[in-house]
Amino acid sequence: MSKRDLFSNLLLQRDVVKAVLLAGFGTLLIGSSSVAFALDNDEYSVIRKAAEAGRDASIKRIQDWIALPSIAAEDLNMMKGAKYMMALARDAGFDQAEIVPTDGHPGVWATMDNGAERTLAIYFMYDVKQYDPAEWSSPPLEGHIVDKPGFGKAIVGRGAVNQKGPQAMLLGGLHAMRAAGVKPPVNLVLVAEGEEEIGSPHFQQIVSRPDIMAKLKQSEGIFIPIGWQDKKGNVGVNLGAKGIVELELIASGENWGRGPQKDIHSSLKAMVDSPAWRLVQALQTLVTPDGNTPAIDGWFENVRPLTEREKELIAQAAASSDEAERKQLLEVKHWIDDLPFKDALERLASQPTVNIEGLVAGYTGPGGKTILPSRAVAKLDLRLVPNQTRVEAEKKLRAHLDKRGFQDVEMKIGGGYDPTETGEDSRIIRAEIEAYNRAGVNATLNPRLAGSWPGAMFTAPPLSLPAGQFGLGHGSGAHAPDEYFVVESTNPNVAGVVDAAMAYVDFFYRVASIR
Amino acid sequence: MSKRDLFSNLLLQRDVVKAVLLAGFGTLLIGSSSVAFALDNDEYSVIRKAAEAGRDASIKRIQDWIALPSIAAEDLNMMKGAKYMMALARDAGFDQAEIVPTDGHPGVWATMDNGAERTLAIYFMYDVKQYDPAEWSSPPLEGHIVDKPGFGKAIVGRGAVNQKGPQAMLLGGLHAMRAAGVKPPVNLVLVAEGEEEIGSPHFQQIVSRPDIMAKLKQSEGIFIPIGWQDKKGNVGVNLGAKGIVELELIASGENWGRGPQKDIHSSLKAMVDSPAWRLVQALQTLVTPDGNTPAIDGWFENVRPLTEREKELIAQAAASSDEAERKQLLEVKHWIDDLPFKDALERLASQPTVNIEGLVAGYTGPGGKTILPSRAVAKLDLRLVPNQTRVEAEKKLRAHLDKRGFQDVEMKIGGGYDPTETGEDSRIIRAEIEAYNRAGVNATLNPRLAGSWPGAMFTAPPLSLPAGQFGLGHGSGAHAPDEYFVVESTNPNVAGVVDAAMAYVDFFYRVASIR
Repeated sequence: MSKRDLFSNLLLQRDVVKAVLLAGFGTLLIGSSSVAFALDNDEYSVIRKAAEAGRDASIKRIQDWIALPSIAAEDLNMMKGAKYMMALARDAGFDQAEIVPTDGHPGVWATMDNGAERTLAIYFMYDVKQYDPAEWSSPPLEGHIVDKPGFGKAIVGRGAVNQKGPQAMLLGGLHAMRAAGVKPPVNLVLVAEGEEEIGSPHFQQIVSRPDIMAKLKQSEGIFIPIGWQDKKGNVGVNLGAKGIVELELIASGENWGRGPQKDIHSSLKAMVDSPAWRLVQALQTLVTPDGNTPAIDGWFENVRPLTEREKELIAQAAASSDEAERKQLLEVKHWIDDLPFKDALERLASQPTVNIEGLVAGYTGPGGKTILPSRAVAKLDLRLVPNQTRVEAEKKLRAHLDKRGFQDVEMKIGGGYDPTETGEDSRIIRAEIEAYNRAGVNATLNPRLAGSWPGAMFTAPPLSLPAGQFGLGHGSGAHAPDEYFVVESTNPNVAGVVDAAMAYVDFFYRVASIR
Repeated sequence: MSKRDLFSNLLLQRDVVKAVLLAGFGTLLIGSSSVAFALDNDEYSVIRKAAEAGRDASIKRIQDWIALPSIAAEDLNMMKGAKYMMALARDAGFDQAEIVPTDGHPGVWATMDNGAERTLAIYFMYDVKQYDPAEWSSPPLEGHIVDKPGFGKAIVGRGAVNQKGPQAMLLGGLHAMRAAGVKPPVNLVLVAEGEEEIGSPHFQQIVSRPDIMAKLKQSEGIFIPIGWQDKKGNVGVNLGAKGIVELELIASGENWGRGPQKDIHSSLKAMVDSPAWRLVQALQTLVTPDGNTPAIDGWFENVRPLTEREKELIAQAAASSDEAERKQLLEVKHWIDDLPFKDALERLASQPTVNIEGLVAGYTGPGGKTILPSRAVAKLDLRLVPNQTRVEAEKKLRAHLDKRGFQDVEMKIGGGYDPTETGEDSRIIRAEIEAYNRAGVNATLNPRLAGSWPGAMFTAPPLSLPAGQFGLGHGSGAHAPDEYFVVESTNPNVAGVVDAAMAYVDFFYRVASIR
């Protein structure tokens, strides 16, 4: 058994566990509110041994998956990625798994009927963000294992933490149960898409398919695997997520009717209008001069301020998490307006944003090139908070530009989704908290994830399901170079692959047993 | 003899020529002001025959040169390009040619002592702009020959018109004279650099070398070969050129101390500042809201308004050139503010500009990528008019940014030079006009080229030389994809390679003979 067995070591801190262990036998790890489905000591040991035996396979599962990048924006390996996802599900014990065609790239759904009373739904994505190998310190598809000081050994690769690593941990948990001959105590429904990184434009088609929707409706709720433990092992339990609209704003001679239709020599600027300047002028109206607050007409009309409970949760989170570590990890010296950590976290949870993901116009190589470009593009993402909606945001941005005479500035929507909220009292959230507590992990309730996922497709009608995230382990660098996921932890607070897999096993029992 | 022999056909329109031809013999093409060096009928015929015999070699000379791209911004083939330039000069009859080392990339200088009374200096560049083969309809280094409707057959390639084609035409004229056994009637001094496209940061070192400067000081003036005839065969004679500063404005977390030092997930925008927004905000202060007039503090302080004579020349140019053709060529529907052509040309000659050559920040590939970039760059060129200077422009831009709190926004200067002016009454300008007139080409005096070249190194002390451009032929697409230069003209008004080479031959005689 690993010396970093979170479940056997850390849980010793919990009185209830201590008592059980001191007694020498009996059911292990029964939380105060769990009664129906106990995970007894023997069963736990057998599954854990299977998870340990599967450690190398679990690491290889991540590496092999990383080696097949599916990128919707580039139409790269989409069907291959979907089939691979389907095979992974079958391999982990899903008794039914199939490709779900959409008007875009295909999804996958899978079910595992364990004859259980309750059903748990799982959200996977098989796509990853684009990457530029030149920016990486090891090849982004090769999954090299490197030392991450303070954490241990980690796989470096595109998708390592977002989402192949955490998803592989869940699959690892199922493999361990299967190898141990133990049926999961809940039925499972898995829905997976390949367009998460472009804003899930066709995911609604997947979850709306009558047979899939019927299965999802039977579930207690849906969750997405994560691996976001910090150095102290802390995690957040998110009660929702921001929405997002991803789009390009494009100024061009072609649409404008002014400026050139092709790139021309820059000396002509004295007599020819510039689409690049037009884009800059349109952009600068979208935010306050410090670039930090949206200035789009009516943007805050439906923004719901934080509730007292939400503020309370954020204050708790600020108190229990390490500001210095977070700044160091992000390589950020100051929060906006030099805000104290608590206020910065309130801003993170409560404020909609207009972010520039990228700018591209004219000549972008080394040095200069004396051209007047015919076209300029800003790639933006707009993060939305309750009760903003994606449709509202798109309409308001268009109206804002039009009102200022920028009718010609094209909005090319890449995708997006509404913000999502799940109640603190839902079974899935309570099961998350209980599972974290049982693992001795400090779980901080967070009113809202600042990132986005298509949870609203679940939380909004017709499904109206609770939705959350759950998982142990640590990784970072989502969407950035040298993205990584820890597989062998040297930090006693942070899970490696075996503990991360076992966390899902325990979570299934929590969902099955919580009142 | 080609049916498009501009010198024999078009000059028939001139009474003085008609008279000579009607007389059946005697000197051909003696302009009213040329007496000292006649180019007699026999000599002209022999040189022209040699030029025709060299037609294929002349075309190949352009293609071979295009196949060797020297790009200073990428440190590509710089010494190779300089040696090639040197070999081209020797091959064309320069008796002395050598590499001139600088602190940057090397230049070349060459001399041809013809025992003549007058000396003419020539400026060449051996470098070209960057290119993206994906944007071209034929490989940019292969010099494919394609049909250009309205013009004839043209070589497509990077450097075709800027400047390898026109420069090869001058070399072609020298080859023809050499083959015909005729010594040029002027001594020649050639100075060439490989850093024109990055703003000639080390050219001053070349022309300041005592032996080179001594030779240049003996000259009547210096000129740069061009091939800018329009469909009617018209050309402009420029009495100067705008200056330029090329630079990058860079906003970064690193310099700012705010925002991230590396790209981070875009959800963090709600609590972390954005260097990309900072760049946008800094940029938008540099121009008026329409993007057309510099708004940098004190920018117009030393701008000299057009003189009455300059306005007169522009009015003549507007009347004699084809606005519709120009718009069509540039793919531009409207000039700035929907100005009439004359006013647009006045703006072109008289106004300084702040142009965006390129924007690059964060993710620039297809689709989107939810990052908050740590760095954003705007590539700018600032065109300067008399009596602005490069030093003044750089100081004022820095002061403007600093005054608005953008001390952290870095100015990375790529290069540049002052505006330049040459008097209408200089021998070199009068020789240009005479040579154009003799070729039956409508030459329009233009107060100022809106483009830039390092002419101020010649026109300013200590050299204080007149400087101009001269040449026949047509090409377009400088700095753009599918740059081309016409080698076989089907347009009776436009020179092919033989006529373009012969134009330089005649120009040498005009410089030698003009009063």
